[in-house]
Amino acid sequence: MTLEEQLAYLVKGCVDVVRASELRDKLERSVRTGRALTVKVGFDPTAPDLHLGHTVLIRKMKHFQDLGHRVVFLIGDFTGLIGDPTGRSKTRPPLTRDEIAENAETYKAQIFKILDPVSTVVDFNSRWLGTLGSEGWVRLAAKYNVAQMLERRDFRQRYEAGQPIAVHEFLYPLAQAYDSVALQADVELGGTDQLFNLNVGRDIMPAFGLEAQIVMTVPLLVGLDGVEKMSKSYGNYVGVNEPADAMARKLVEEFRGSDAVMWDYFTLLTDRTPAEIDERRGRFERGETTATELRFELARTIVGDFHGVEAAARAVDAVRARHELRVRAADGVDLREGMASSLGDAVPSLDVACGADGTVSLPRVIVDLGFAPSTSEATRQVKAGGVKVDGERVTTVRWAPPGGVGTHVLTVGARKVARVRILAAEDRG
Amino acid sequence: MTLEEQLAYLVKGCVDVVRASELRDKLERSVRTGRALTVKVGFDPTAPDLHLGHTVLIRKMKHFQDLGHRVVFLIGDFTGLIGDPTGRSKTRPPLTRDEIAENAETYKAQIFKILDPVSTVVDFNSRWLGTLGSEGWVRLAAKYNVAQMLERRDFRQRYEAGQPIAVHEFLYPLAQAYDSVALQADVELGGTDQLFNLNVGRDIMPAFGLEAQIVMTVPLLVGLDGVEKMSKSYGNYVGVNEPADAMARKLVEEFRGSDAVMWDYFTLLTDRTPAEIDERRGRFERGETTATELRFELARTIVGDFHGVEAAARAVDAVRARHELRVRAADGVDLREGMASSLGDAVPSLDVACGADGTVSLPRVIVDLGFAPSTSEATRQVKAGGVKVDGERVTTVRWAPPGGVGTHVLTVGARKVARVRILAAEDRG
Repeated sequence: MTLEEQLAYLVKGCVDVVRASELRDKLERSVRTGRALTVKVGFDPTAPDLHLGHTVLIRKMKHFQDLGHRVVFLIGDFTGLIGDPTGRSKTRPPLTRDEIAENAETYKAQIFKILDPVSTVVDFNSRWLGTLGSEGWVRLAAKYNVAQMLERRDFRQRYEAGQPIAVHEFLYPLAQAYDSVALQADVELGGTDQLFNLNVGRDIMPAFGLEAQIVMTVPLLVGLDGVEKMSKSYGNYVGVNEPADAMARKLVEEFRGSDAVMWDYFTLLTDRTPAEIDERRGRFERGETTATELRFELARTIVGDFHGVEAAARAVDAVRARHELRVRAADGVDLREGMASSLGDAVPSLDVACGADGTVSLPRVIVDLGFAPSTSEATRQVKAGGVKVDGERVTTVRWAPPGGVGTHVLTVGARKVARVRILAAEDRG
Repeated sequence: MTLEEQLAYLVKGCVDVVRASELRDKLERSVRTGRALTVKVGFDPTAPDLHLGHTVLIRKMKHFQDLGHRVVFLIGDFTGLIGDPTGRSKTRPPLTRDEIAENAETYKAQIFKILDPVSTVVDFNSRWLGTLGSEGWVRLAAKYNVAQMLERRDFRQRYEAGQPIAVHEFLYPLAQAYDSVALQADVELGGTDQLFNLNVGRDIMPAFGLEAQIVMTVPLLVGLDGVEKMSKSYGNYVGVNEPADAMARKLVEEFRGSDAVMWDYFTLLTDRTPAEIDERRGRFERGETTATELRFELARTIVGDFHGVEAAARAVDAVRARHELRVRAADGVDLREGMASSLGDAVPSLDVACGADGTVSLPRVIVDLGFAPSTSEATRQVKAGGVKVDGERVTTVRWAPPGGVGTHVLTVGARKVARVRILAAEDRG
């Protein structure tokens, strides 16, 4: 890559770059001298369970790694070792060193799906903050002033609202800033909500005789719902430890985002260069490809990063098969002819015994498939016309399978598909 | 003393007592259990040169000592060992441990003129602040909040005026407060300007499982000019290391304060009880004694504390003799009759040879006595009528001593008095 391409690759998707001109200078110098840049990123020491929202930052670290720079995954264990210093919270006891080491392993198992395990430096800030000493703390605190601290949005809002800010809360941004001094960071990455803290590091480094670090922030990722930030509590997430099938299914079937969100995913969740993304955007705008096709590609790319190309292809193909089935079912195409058997393992199957009267309880089948929480809810769906068998809407609760035994395709709503095999009453155990 | 008398003695002269009811409780408990109260007073570690203004606080320590309590003279060397943590001031380099030890000896030489050298505990806060550790600092800083800090007057004023307050300035009141925790102080004394800091100690002690200390402040002492606070830079001070004569002279002759200031001196610079002071005030108001007599008593008491009763009596008697001489000179009483010889050692003497013409240069005599900086200034004083010999105004520069050889009393202005012995011209070496 040329210097310009490197710069474009690194700032891709970033919200803030303070400052791009200095980043260019550092990159240029690094190319000239062969000295890698040190890129620092801090993480909480609490046990992580990462989802794609977290990977935006981790992937930005990877981009630096791709260009040969030295990435430090810094676990902020110093504050974790203290717990809640006000002593008011019983839910934030100090972590032990063993717990922190264990959490670090949990982190590694997840981040090394993206980062290079060999070249990534994993460090702990208790190494220098724990031994800073009284004089060190006073000197550090002397480097920043109260008015500057109160410019941080949440501090200012709390101060103006009369909500208490404990004095130690002013020490934490300084401690984080001192991490940059200890690591002699060239670049610090973080979420947009960390901009203030990252800039404190930038501000104090010259007082310690160091060049100010570059500060780069990445945005919050919008979740699958296309509305809220990706978060476990909103249920709109894809976990990095999920199997390929689940990842592919969520990324295609649960994704409700606009095209803009889809392009954000390309930018923030893949290593595609800005030029490569622009090329796709061009084809899309010229009608040479569809949003659906792009989503399949996106899913294949993301799942491939975590599970390899082959597993990703299998998982996405299964989703694609279900998708096409749904499209045809929605179009009223007769699905009986061989379709059911062609579904393979992509959809759930259920064996159902016919009743003595030759009928089957459709709500019961729907609940057994996990497509509804209760038979009353399933009954409502049947009566509302949301259920089809072999592409035909069925609105009677007791359904008489045409032709008795045999395999049928059941669809509930637009997205739930299953294979149902009807057995004669005497066939059941 | 009864409990009420003890309380009255201890709060005598104080500006703030937070809170008097708790002090009474602590005193009562101390009497009951025989456990002395720990009384903490912090001092700067810079080389001290104490004057009476400083003794107000030290004397309040003595009052606790008089009642059997445990007084800690705490040298705040922790901040001294750091110097200027902003690194901006070249004039505040860190003190070495040797310098601090030396300053402590200088302190002791002065404070032990008032305090009991045996029972006074001299301590250094670097003992616990230097080893507080990172966790200790964070936990300490968690005990107080930013809005509380910004209530301190000078912080608030600077914040509102847009003048920077470095974050470490918030750590210093907390460090001082932690001293009270480390010493388990029952009482902390300080100047009125320290009220906020002393109250921080009071506020945080319960969070460390301790009873809140009593906070007591003493006022700034007005200087000899009766206007400004006593200070070396105003030249209106009496140093604790000054000789008895100089102390007595300043306290009587240089004192320009009102009667109210004189009563403040009785309250703040002597161990007289409130009842004893009230008794004097009563006599004064009934015309049974004069402000002058009270000032002589005050001077004798104060000088006696530093130089012993006998030296104080001698020094004050000399001042009194000069005073009476001035009164009589001002009244036009003929001072030749035996007065000169009765002056004793209280006034300076000068031997002067008559000129061949039988006259003496008065300006020369005045300069040689140190009563004027130059003969031209002395000439001006003579011509202006400010000079008397034996109570008679002399306005001629060349003065012919009546009767030739002999001893005369020379007065310049209202306050300068000397004995001048006129020798025949041939008597001079």
